[in-house]
Amino acid sequence: MSRLFYFSAGETGEWRIRSIEAVAGGGLSAACRLEVSSDAPRDGAWSVRGIVSNQRYVTRVEHSRLVPKQEPPGRAQATHGALIPIKKSPEWWALTQDERREILADRSRHIAIGLEYLPAIARRLHHCRDLGEREPFDFLTWFEWAPEHDPAFDELLARLRASEEWRYVEREVEVRLERD
Amino acid sequence: MSRLFYFSAGETGEWRIRSIEAVAGGGLSAACRLEVSSDAPRDGAWSVRGIVSNQRYVTRVEHSRLVPKQEPPGRAQATHGALIPIKKSPEWWALTQDERREILADRSRHIAIGLEYLPAIARRLHHCRDLGEREPFDFLTWFEWAPEHDPAFDELLARLRASEEWRYVEREVEVRLERD
Repeated sequence: MSRLFYFSAGETGEWRIRSIEAVAGGGLSAACRLEVSSDAPRDGAWSVRGIVSNQRYVTRVEHSRLVPKQEPPGRAQATHGALIPIKKSPEWWALTQDERREILADRSRHIAIGLEYLPAIARRLHHCRDLGEREPFDFLTWFEWAPEHDPAFDELLARLRASEEWRYVEREVEVRLERD
Repeated sequence: MSRLFYFSAGETGEWRIRSIEAVAGGGLSAACRLEVSSDAPRDGAWSVRGIVSNQRYVTRVEHSRLVPKQEPPGRAQATHGALIPIKKSPEWWALTQDERREILADRSRHIAIGLEYLPAIARRLHHCRDLGEREPFDFLTWFEWAPEHDPAFDELLARLRASEEWRYVEREVEVRLERD
C-alpha cells in the first residue's frame, strides 16, 4: 500500500540502466542499476522520489475506460521499462485547472493517447512537486512493457512530446531500463 | 517565497491559542502559543505542516474574480486568526476530478462562498496529503481577520460545514488564535 517511491541509481537494483538521456534541461549522471523502493536510499549516484496521488484531470467517463485496461507494474513479461522525470514551467503551474485540463486532455489528448497503449504499456504516475520546496522534478512517470512492445513505447513517447502540453516541459530525462 | 509552512504549538510563537476544538474525529492537545514558520520545529506540543500548491479546482473566470479581492496574511489589523486542519475520507479521494469539482464548486459553492468574505477574511490553503504517506491531515487552512469580522468568520465556517462537501470531512480541528 506504499504511495511514496524512491528511484535510486547506483551499483545495485533490480533494473539495469540501458541509457540516460537528457531530453530537455539538465540530465542525470550515468549509473549501472536502478533500485525502486519505498525506503530512502543510503547512498548511490542519484535518487529521485515521488508519491502516487489522486487523479488530477481524469473524469469519471475516462476513468471507466482506463481502469478495465490498466495492469499494474510487475508483470513477469514486462522486462523493459522507463523512468521519465519531468519538470513543467512556472507558466504551466500558473494556469487554472480548466486551462490545464483543456491543454492536457482536450488539445493534447494525453489521456486518450495513453489509453491506446493499454494494457501493453503499464504506467504509474508519481507526483514530486508538493513533496517539498526544492524537488528537482514535478512528476516521475514509470513505464513497463514486454520487449515486443518497444516500438509502441517509442511511438507513445513521440506522440506525447509532439503535443501542446509538452511546450510546458522545461526539464525531461529519459531513463531506459531492462530487468534481468 | 516559501511554500512549506509548519504550524507548531508550544510555549512560544506570535499567536496566542484561544481555543482548540475537535469538530470531527481526533483533536489536538492543548497549548499556549502557535508559531508559524518555514523551519521544522525542534520541540513543542504538536506540529502540523502543509505546502502551498497550484489551485486544483478554480477556473480562470473564478480566479479573475478572486485575485482582485484577495489580501495576503500579515495585515496589521488582522489580529484574529484560525488554523483549520482537515482530513477528507477515502471516498472523497476516490472521486474523479469532475466529480470533486461538481461537489466542491457547483453543489457546495465553496469558491463562491469564500469570495463573499474577501477581502475581510484572508485565507491561505496548505496541502498535506502528498507530503508523505503518514500525514495526519489532508489540508490546513489558515485564516486571518480583524476582530470586527468575528461574526463573518463564524458565518463562513457554518456555511461551509453545512455544505455537501463537508460530508467527506472525517477529521477537522478548529484552532482559534489571537495576535498580541
